[in-house]
Amino acid sequence: MTVLVLTCEEDLTADIVVSTLQDLGVPLVRLDPADLPGKVALSAEYAGNDFHGYLKAGERMVSLSSLRSVWVRRPGTPGARAPEQSAWITAESEQALYGMLACTPARWMNHPVASVQARNKPWQLHIAHHSGFLVPPTLITTFPAVARQFAAVHQDLVVKSVSGKHPGDPPLVLPTTRISPDADFSGVAAGPTLLQQHIRKEADIRLTCVGEHLFAARKKADPEEVDSRFTQHGTWEPAEVPDSVERAVSSYMNTARLAYGAFDFAEDPDGAWWFLECNQGGQFGFVQLETDQPIAQAIATWLAVESLT
Amino acid sequence: MTVLVLTCEEDLTADIVVSTLQDLGVPLVRLDPADLPGKVALSAEYAGNDFHGYLKAGERMVSLSSLRSVWVRRPGTPGARAPEQSAWITAESEQALYGMLACTPARWMNHPVASVQARNKPWQLHIAHHSGFLVPPTLITTFPAVARQFAAVHQDLVVKSVSGKHPGDPPLVLPTTRISPDADFSGVAAGPTLLQQHIRKEADIRLTCVGEHLFAARKKADPEEVDSRFTQHGTWEPAEVPDSVERAVSSYMNTARLAYGAFDFAEDPDGAWWFLECNQGGQFGFVQLETDQPIAQAIATWLAVESLT
Repeated sequence: MTVLVLTCEEDLTADIVVSTLQDLGVPLVRLDPADLPGKVALSAEYAGNDFHGYLKAGERMVSLSSLRSVWVRRPGTPGARAPEQSAWITAESEQALYGMLACTPARWMNHPVASVQARNKPWQLHIAHHSGFLVPPTLITTFPAVARQFAAVHQDLVVKSVSGKHPGDPPLVLPTTRISPDADFSGVAAGPTLLQQHIRKEADIRLTCVGEHLFAARKKADPEEVDSRFTQHGTWEPAEVPDSVERAVSSYMNTARLAYGAFDFAEDPDGAWWFLECNQGGQFGFVQLETDQPIAQAIATWLAVESLT
Repeated sequence: MTVLVLTCEEDLTADIVVSTLQDLGVPLVRLDPADLPGKVALSAEYAGNDFHGYLKAGERMVSLSSLRSVWVRRPGTPGARAPEQSAWITAESEQALYGMLACTPARWMNHPVASVQARNKPWQLHIAHHSGFLVPPTLITTFPAVARQFAAVHQDLVVKSVSGKHPGDPPLVLPTTRISPDADFSGVAAGPTLLQQHIRKEADIRLTCVGEHLFAARKKADPEEVDSRFTQHGTWEPAEVPDSVERAVSSYMNTARLAYGAFDFAEDPDGAWWFLECNQGGQFGFVQLETDQPIAQAIATWLAVESLT
């Protein structure tokens, strides 16, 4: 039984997981969907009640029925390195590859369909509430009057991108930005805007969930700072996970049908963890590097376990 | 409790469903996501364990908690008619609208996440097999030698698009095309290619499934013809659904988590129905027009039923 790793070539984080799998003696195939068609080839035949398929990556060949798990890490766009590139070749390659893989009983970290839903921020907030997390009061609106009213009630606010994307080209990460309650909110009519009560935080918390294993890390924060992705000071230290958070994470992961999730929290002066987001494809290398938490090893172990089906 | 219809303005098929709902006295809001932001506005607030949201379309306002169902018919792209258009406004509007709607207990015809999976043809073939349909032997491959071998075994073949898309610009519907078993298959290395045994058919069957209601229609076909979308002769007549097909449809719809599906079959000389595809957003107007089957009414009734939650 083989592990399939879908990622680009330059992925040092994946390298750690791959070398752990190799140490465990687990057969694996690593490929970048950008190399289909070309270095990567595929075939699947549906006949009678049978389905037989295989993938070829370089000289490695793997039968789809022998896949125990698929790790969707940082895959390139199918067809992106095809000799004849086109949106059509990409669509054909993407549907063929992911469609065939969806026909196998392999475990996914994470299943692409679950990932689509899990990336949606309004849905994240809803699931987070229902899972038992503390969630800062949040508004998504195109009504300037509603935005003004929300600002009047909550006073200390941040504004974020709803989609997590940036309006610029090339798209950069859009920092979470503090906004005055007296700001001119008329612009929200031009596009849905996400306003959230600013949590004055003592620390940032990154909780990485791998199957049933939780790895939490804490980094002291300046209470005035709102987006620690853009600050370099401080280091990540291992943190204990409160029981209530552990239960909430378990509920969230089940509802979202995720095997991997990187949760961001703001820790307030009372030690409470406020849910900010869950990134189904979030990085973990920087946490492992600073805390020595064996996250890559947990991923390798999860991928190596035989499928239950 | 209100029905939400997401479709473009020029949608005569939706008009029939809407007028049926009006006859039933069911409150409804019809809007085109292309009008967000602009004619369509939205707001959602997440506070404590509560979630309150509403949509405004023209002068109509609807609370998200009062939605009984959402019909995703032919919605435009969010942001497409925004005063300031950009890929970013589209991403923000799409995530906000569909994310908020995913937080409601409304029934979906069809849920966008289920639709993503249901459009995938390799997955369709797999689910069709498992649901008990007859499925023509099919190959998806980038290996010329495998294509040649498949052709030698099955002889009478058609080639189709894997993604259902067309390589041209503007994208047209790609007709299913017959291909000689002696053809030069070296080109399949340039992109995944779908080859299928050609079913010599007596008739085309279109089966429209609306919740638990099945509407089948038959149109006599020339056995030499492969894609009846491109022929004008013949008319659709109501058809009886074989028991085995009825069971298979029910299994397929459950597995795919669809409330609506338009199935295409080829009826062979023995009267057997061969699964070709299931289009989760397939048209039904032309069948209703020729057969008088009350498909629009069934959709209206399904949408009008109170949510079970």
